[in-house]
Amino acid sequence: MNYQAINIKEKLSQFDALWSPRVIAEMNDYQFKLAKGEGEFVWHAHQDTDEVFIVIDGTLEIEFRDGKVTLTNGEMFVIPKGVEHKPFAKGLCQVLLVEPRGVINTGDAGGDLTAEADIWI
Amino acid sequence: MNYQAINIKEKLSQFDALWSPRVIAEMNDYQFKLAKGEGEFVWHAHQDTDEVFIVIDGTLEIEFRDGKVTLTNGEMFVIPKGVEHKPFAKGLCQVLLVEPRGVINTGDAGGDLTAEADIWI
Repeated sequence: MNYQAINIKEKLSQFDALWSPRVIAEMNDYQFKLAKGEGEFVWHAHQDTDEVFIVIDGTLEIEFRDGKVTLTNGEMFVIPKGVEHKPFAKGLCQVLLVEPRGVINTGDAGGDLTAEADIWI
Repeated sequence: MNYQAINIKEKLSQFDALWSPRVIAEMNDYQFKLAKGEGEFVWHAHQDTDEVFIVIDGTLEIEFRDGKVTLTNGEMFVIPKGVEHKPFAKGLCQVLLVEPRGVINTGDAGGDLTAEADIWI
């Protein structure tokens, strides 16, 4: 096995694409992914799983049909499975996602912002 | 549902106990836990699951039978299931752990440092 620390900010420096998660680690059948976002994402839900957002840098708003939550550096939130949500970042936001392997970023919504699910950096 | 961000540093300010993880969130059947450590923990392994350490503050060394990894702020590591390891922190270290609900901090080793598994803050 490889005794190499995974440095989150160093990994974030390796890509620029928005709303396109990159896998940095796996734990059992779960993945840790980094993503960058700016502007509006799409309304979507993940019918089979909760999803965790941890903000590393910037501010992320997550809108729900009946409210919203605002996350800044060092804050996290668990989106329950099946709950529609729409991420929004006024400026560039960098987040760590935790979710099962194979989850698609746009969930059940599809569309142009759908990214490949399993790109490692 | 409760649209309240979970602030990791604010949660860390709520307890002082060493080597005694506190649960701050659940995602499916996984838990996010905060822990503080200083000095030596015990050699142990978790036979049924990988375990993730993300260092929030300080420096954590994780010793293995054939090497070690050193993690500082913003670095993470996945300990594969079944692999013996011994955490060590020269000064106070604060970490975010991710692992399945019910995992015991001392794994298969038991002993005085065994903490209750499901204390929420």
